[in-house]
Amino acid sequence: MKFQNKSWIEVSADSDFPIENIPFGIILPDGYKPQVATRIGNTAVSLSVLSDYGYFDDLNIDDMSVFCEPVLNGFMALGKKQTEAVRKRLMELFNHNNSQLRNDRGVVDNALFAISEVEMLLPVKVTDYTDFYSSIEHATNVGKMFRNPENALLPNWKHLPVGYHGRSSSIVVSGTGILRPNGQLKPNDTGRPVFGPTKQMDFELEMAFITGKQTLLGESIATENADEYIFGMVIFNDLSARDIQKWEYVPLGPFLSKSFGSVISPWIVTLEALAPFRVEGPKQNPPVLPYLQTKGPENIDINLEVLLQPLHKNPDTICRSNFKYMYWNMRQQLAHQTVNGCNINVGDMYASGTISGTEPGSYGSMLELSWRGEKPLKLSDGSNRTFINDDDTIIMRAHCQKEGLRVGFGESVTKILPAKKN
Amino acid sequence: MKFQNKSWIEVSADSDFPIENIPFGIILPDGYKPQVATRIGNTAVSLSVLSDYGYFDDLNIDDMSVFCEPVLNGFMALGKKQTEAVRKRLMELFNHNNSQLRNDRGVVDNALFAISEVEMLLPVKVTDYTDFYSSIEHATNVGKMFRNPENALLPNWKHLPVGYHGRSSSIVVSGTGILRPNGQLKPNDTGRPVFGPTKQMDFELEMAFITGKQTLLGESIATENADEYIFGMVIFNDLSARDIQKWEYVPLGPFLSKSFGSVISPWIVTLEALAPFRVEGPKQNPPVLPYLQTKGPENIDINLEVLLQPLHKNPDTICRSNFKYMYWNMRQQLAHQTVNGCNINVGDMYASGTISGTEPGSYGSMLELSWRGEKPLKLSDGSNRTFINDDDTIIMRAHCQKEGLRVGFGESVTKILPAKKN
Repeated sequence: MKFQNKSWIEVSADSDFPIENIPFGIILPDGYKPQVATRIGNTAVSLSVLSDYGYFDDLNIDDMSVFCEPVLNGFMALGKKQTEAVRKRLMELFNHNNSQLRNDRGVVDNALFAISEVEMLLPVKVTDYTDFYSSIEHATNVGKMFRNPENALLPNWKHLPVGYHGRSSSIVVSGTGILRPNGQLKPNDTGRPVFGPTKQMDFELEMAFITGKQTLLGESIATENADEYIFGMVIFNDLSARDIQKWEYVPLGPFLSKSFGSVISPWIVTLEALAPFRVEGPKQNPPVLPYLQTKGPENIDINLEVLLQPLHKNPDTICRSNFKYMYWNMRQQLAHQTVNGCNINVGDMYASGTISGTEPGSYGSMLELSWRGEKPLKLSDGSNRTFINDDDTIIMRAHCQKEGLRVGFGESVTKILPAKKN
Repeated sequence: MKFQNKSWIEVSADSDFPIENIPFGIILPDGYKPQVATRIGNTAVSLSVLSDYGYFDDLNIDDMSVFCEPVLNGFMALGKKQTEAVRKRLMELFNHNNSQLRNDRGVVDNALFAISEVEMLLPVKVTDYTDFYSSIEHATNVGKMFRNPENALLPNWKHLPVGYHGRSSSIVVSGTGILRPNGQLKPNDTGRPVFGPTKQMDFELEMAFITGKQTLLGESIATENADEYIFGMVIFNDLSARDIQKWEYVPLGPFLSKSFGSVISPWIVTLEALAPFRVEGPKQNPPVLPYLQTKGPENIDINLEVLLQPLHKNPDTICRSNFKYMYWNMRQQLAHQTVNGCNINVGDMYASGTISGTEPGSYGSMLELSWRGEKPLKLSDGSNRTFINDDDTIIMRAHCQKEGLRVGFGESVTKILPAKKN
């Protein structure tokens, strides 16, 4: 295996977590309390321990207790000036040329954990959650399937980043098993709905950003200021029950078809770590209203993949997509969210909507990959899938790569468990 | 003025807050910190002070610090056994036959405030917010206006309590002024949307319940257990910008048209205080699926009214309705919300949807009262309204009355302020 040598912690060349990343998460080491941490290679580093030993003492941190909180909300609320100072300090401390911490063996022994020895917790108490619908390829695919193939996009789609409020309570961290939900289904051949487990269990490949700065009711965020409010990003698996959705969603939108579990990756990668991977977004035509105009590069080149793993089998890659395809970017989403004066909080989560590319192999949901069940996917174990089976595991991965630098998110892993008998 | 004489605190006969009510709220007395309180007549009573002086010492309260928190979440999380014990203790302490507290003048001087001397704060940190659509009269009116007069209800409406996730950050307390929101409007005569203040500012007369007990992801609440989870209720003004809503809401539901401010009354009236006013709900036909079946009396007889007050003018009553009209009841709403395993938290808010009756004077929104602007309302100052003007104040009131007992909610008061220039 090839290793990078920028840090005195081993980092393999294909790791998502080189010293240039320094994401933030919440670890639960066996026998300890939850605490704020970062990850370098396959090593988790407790910021709680480092702060106890004074390694952040000269950074003018308003409140050192944020490092021993069980969520990152307090840490994020310190503001980017302070959180970026912590990130830069960590880059210094773990640089291979710096022996200060490396030689402080007592601290190293307490602060560093093998990633396999810690449980990763939900990194943020989600205050509000919005799900956008910002991939033109996804919206077009869905429009073709369920509405009009000739006129797949609704009239508002190119004028505003369509979105809806989602359920924040059921956002969980990678590794959480999710029960197949029960609900009302309306088969085409019955006059009345029936009750039972969804037969169309699906994922949606999304990325989400988390806000680290609040506004007050009545305030709006201009696109050019949006980055100040975006702390970082995670992978977001927006699990969806398509048959429940189809019956319930008119006229007020998706509800129980989306609120039984949404699964995020555990490490929040900061917007600053993603800066080297900025790219221009697609040209928007017709031109958008002034409050939605942005100057590039406003998108981010993030390689995405989805793997499906049947029980006791090898995983198959079933989708490769990229975040850079998004028609509406994060700055526009945040400007739109607040243009009416809606206030945001530290800990809000804003998901992108399913990220599909132009090719069938880049579609970000089973609904599109199997084209509503008409084209089953063949897996390497010989089985077929139109939607997700019980005991299947969905693995989503995301990373940026450019000129030898790789910065990534790790994984969002979700096993679907059989429905409860009601 | 006639007074009741059940308490040694004066309570006028038409007060919403007799000793049988004992609602909970958060007061901010001048010069003090926010604290948990109740209200009797026009007197606010600090439970923080009473707990300091030992008046709850024998009630086995898990954590006395909840009384000095700035929201009721901690108090509610004690569980109904403890919160009801506090409520009953307050009924005893303020009973006119009980002189214990009455003669403890030092405590009385510290704990009691004239309601006019305290600021009322948002009583709960709202964890998630759902808005249902459970009035058949409202759904029928809207269906007639925007879809098909012959077939006003969509096929799912009588089979499940339609609802959608709303924005929790912008739920504020009565008295908060709300700016007319800016947003995208799509006049019929233009090909493209324009940006500006809504021209169709509306209210929706709703009630909301707040949960005081959590579930875990994967758990469901049966209708017969729902009352255990419902702590109490408030008046809910679901402000709506109809022109923004019309353009944005397909296909994922209302978004910015509803997230610029929702206004609740400050006192949470417990489900137990409302028990004497239970009534049978309307017969549901077709029969609902087993998980939605309830045994009566499942509705509550709550008289509702909306007043509109132009600047420097007298208020006019423009709507009288009743919560007992609801087709879907709260037990069904909570069972439906959780049937897919969606977890609930202490502090969730569940609004009813607009509560309209059968008569035009009972419609719970300007949209219905003015029938989409076709029938302007004439106010007593001689002016007309199709929607809400700048500087208009919307006042919502709610109370139960039966055999000489009146238990009420007070008011939700909202002044609409001119839009910000963007």
